[in-house]
Amino acid sequence: MLKKILIANRGEIAVRIIRACAEMGVRSVAIYTEPDRHALHVKRADEAYSLGEDPLAGYLDPHKIVSLAKQVGCDAIHPGYGFLSENAEFARLCEEQGLVFIGPKSDVIHKMGDKTQARDSMRAAGVPVTPGSEGNLADLDEALKLAEEIGYPVMLKATSGGGGRGIRRCDSAEELTVQYPRVISEATKAFGSAEVFLEKCIVNPKHIEVQVLADSQGNVIHLYERDCSIQRRNQKLIEIAPSPQLTPEQRNYIGELAVKAAQAVGYQNAGTVEFLLTGNQVYFMEMNTRVQVEHTITEQITGVDIVREQIQIASGLPLSYRQEDIQYRGYALQFRVNAEDPKNDFLPSFGRVSHYYAPGGPGVRVDTAIYTGYEIPPYFDSMCLKLVVWALRWDEVIARGQRALDDMRLHGIKTTANYYKEILAHEDFKRAEFNTSFVPDHPELLKYSEKTHPSEIALAIATAVAAHAGW
Amino acid sequence: MLKKILIANRGEIAVRIIRACAEMGVRSVAIYTEPDRHALHVKRADEAYSLGEDPLAGYLDPHKIVSLAKQVGCDAIHPGYGFLSENAEFARLCEEQGLVFIGPKSDVIHKMGDKTQARDSMRAAGVPVTPGSEGNLADLDEALKLAEEIGYPVMLKATSGGGGRGIRRCDSAEELTVQYPRVISEATKAFGSAEVFLEKCIVNPKHIEVQVLADSQGNVIHLYERDCSIQRRNQKLIEIAPSPQLTPEQRNYIGELAVKAAQAVGYQNAGTVEFLLTGNQVYFMEMNTRVQVEHTITEQITGVDIVREQIQIASGLPLSYRQEDIQYRGYALQFRVNAEDPKNDFLPSFGRVSHYYAPGGPGVRVDTAIYTGYEIPPYFDSMCLKLVVWALRWDEVIARGQRALDDMRLHGIKTTANYYKEILAHEDFKRAEFNTSFVPDHPELLKYSEKTHPSEIALAIATAVAAHAGW
Repeated sequence: MLKKILIANRGEIAVRIIRACAEMGVRSVAIYTEPDRHALHVKRADEAYSLGEDPLAGYLDPHKIVSLAKQVGCDAIHPGYGFLSENAEFARLCEEQGLVFIGPKSDVIHKMGDKTQARDSMRAAGVPVTPGSEGNLADLDEALKLAEEIGYPVMLKATSGGGGRGIRRCDSAEELTVQYPRVISEATKAFGSAEVFLEKCIVNPKHIEVQVLADSQGNVIHLYERDCSIQRRNQKLIEIAPSPQLTPEQRNYIGELAVKAAQAVGYQNAGTVEFLLTGNQVYFMEMNTRVQVEHTITEQITGVDIVREQIQIASGLPLSYRQEDIQYRGYALQFRVNAEDPKNDFLPSFGRVSHYYAPGGPGVRVDTAIYTGYEIPPYFDSMCLKLVVWALRWDEVIARGQRALDDMRLHGIKTTANYYKEILAHEDFKRAEFNTSFVPDHPELLKYSEKTHPSEIALAIATAVAAHAGW
Repeated sequence: MLKKILIANRGEIAVRIIRACAEMGVRSVAIYTEPDRHALHVKRADEAYSLGEDPLAGYLDPHKIVSLAKQVGCDAIHPGYGFLSENAEFARLCEEQGLVFIGPKSDVIHKMGDKTQARDSMRAAGVPVTPGSEGNLADLDEALKLAEEIGYPVMLKATSGGGGRGIRRCDSAEELTVQYPRVISEATKAFGSAEVFLEKCIVNPKHIEVQVLADSQGNVIHLYERDCSIQRRNQKLIEIAPSPQLTPEQRNYIGELAVKAAQAVGYQNAGTVEFLLTGNQVYFMEMNTRVQVEHTITEQITGVDIVREQIQIASGLPLSYRQEDIQYRGYALQFRVNAEDPKNDFLPSFGRVSHYYAPGGPGVRVDTAIYTGYEIPPYFDSMCLKLVVWALRWDEVIARGQRALDDMRLHGIKTTANYYKEILAHEDFKRAEFNTSFVPDHPELLKYSEKTHPSEIALAIATAVAAHAGW
């Protein structure tokens, strides 16, 4: 078993990994940059080391992190999500320096990060991919010919792209002709590669992803799926497990596809295979070679501690469960509570948390690194809390979500929490009839009135009285 | 469905019921006495009414509570646990005044509250009771004769007794002769009844109890058992579900016994049948005709929301589940975090909570009414927080318990939290080998050193620096 793990991350996921370490008797080492000096992950880890003044540089510096890990006697690094978690070079550096990278091998990260390589691997393994290029496009003529074959609309994509950049939807040959040189130019500038490919644009699909676990002994299992269709501009807002929209047959089929995908590339550790689902047709979208923000809801329905399994796999041990041990039960929802103002185009709303009180009671789980008095720094992701609710039945989990969002006190910043209550109250959501167009199709849900909590009213009155009394 | 419920209780159970009401769209009404003006249940209910200055009188006044409930338009009263929850007169008053009492009928409360009636009912239904009296004892001669038959030690008990009063263990005929008039005298003074009975003293049993649910249509199910053997002077400290000490056959047998017990008395609503287990022999001990403090761990392993079911049953609706729908999964532990100083004979430690931060992450549930700045009043029960942990495996749930207890910040008062870490670390506990003698048999577990959290050290240093700087 690993003895001491450096956590190359911050925020709630760092706290999550520290907790798993504590439960396994593994020593945890936090890193931080100066704006994070008072962050919870620094307070909670067994040891914590500063990586300098710059808010981001320390979290993104593979050499500094690897060298610190060796210096303080770590035998492994957990990258969390974001930052260096899908950076094949970072994983390779760990391998070279004799540190265990808690994730798949660097060449697998590389292969799944290259979109055409990933598509080719999946196609070869018999996992359906969206109709489109085999490999990269040679030129515009090939693009036009292929688009004619598969039918418009198509997506033109940079092979090394990501984060929504280097992607264009084209509805006609004219548009494709115009966009082709633009995407090449953008890809060259942003990713240092002119390679592009093309695939059919799936209109208003459901986003369904499958959690997989794979150990070094060749065992691969899936933990069923998550429905992440409730998203805004490719950012997931509410995640659901299992998908209330799948039949048991679809569920098993897609789970087995994900296992096949992981096996095809010799995957190890925890990973997620993302699919687009339209009607009864499933297409491989991409594989995320790390623990995901929404791993929590899979933990709630299956009971499996995914981060514990990650550490166990990285220690060379077999999985704790066989596929037949994995049962899902009930429904879990995760709300990504972001420090953003939904009524102001989701503008980030950083600042000091003046009052925070965790929701509790039955079926409620909270993962966060905030606390009363904590100042959310403006340099990082705006997600400040993950609220997960679980219940046996779909109607019950929705009611529980409303209750838990109401229960939570999080003052001092604007958050997306109240917006989520509107989504939960929508009839289509209650009937579990939604796809990725739900959020853009319902701008009216942003027209809620900001309910002020009694405690805030009391605070306002107290301030007013204090200002005018005693004259 | 009921529309508006008055919650005749305070603290975490009042908050728990308010949450269930919120999830079911039922309006909640809190009551409080003046020392509870700033209590969380008052803040969280839809409405809240004061029942006067006296700390306890308001919570114990059936007429005041019923009259308030009618005045503010409630159709039901939830009594929680403690206070008036097992007071048959209170239930009868509700019935007479046209209010739904969320619990069994008053005559059933009465019957199960009378220890010899309860024993007789169980014996008649074929539920094993400890060997002893049928009905009350006529005189000392009958007591001596019976004790000789069943063998010493025996317990001499007041029929109307409770809370550990009116009970004596007798190891010989001499002792029984001495104690007999004393118990009669104590019972007469304390409970207004001279009736006593006798039963065999079961030495160092396991305390196993079964959660049952029964609706008004005659459906009765059980939700498996809880092991409450970790107790000190009849006060439960750590509860476990399911019992790691039962075989599946014992589990099913005892579950069916509990259903039989509930059916025998025409039970309705949620209740708990308590058993003593010694070797392979099970004895009925008593039935608690209310929701219990430790209902939480049954919710964790079965997924059933017990308070929701209580409200649904009281609304005249059928149970949401049949027996075959009830599956248990994993293990749950509940720690009763009491405001007490274990190192000082568990002396209550009331006062202001200077810092509270809820533990979180996977498998953690918190039910509490405390918050940072809250002053725990000295008039009520010392239990201030219920920490529940859940995991698929026994070793995992113990590790999670340790982690969650470490995670929690609760400063300003002494609590039992650190003592529980010692219990978790004991080899007998880890091997699931314990009975009700565990706590008295291990006084050495009280010899832990109070670890001071870094934040407390920082606070102490800051205070010291502030005191001496600037002179």
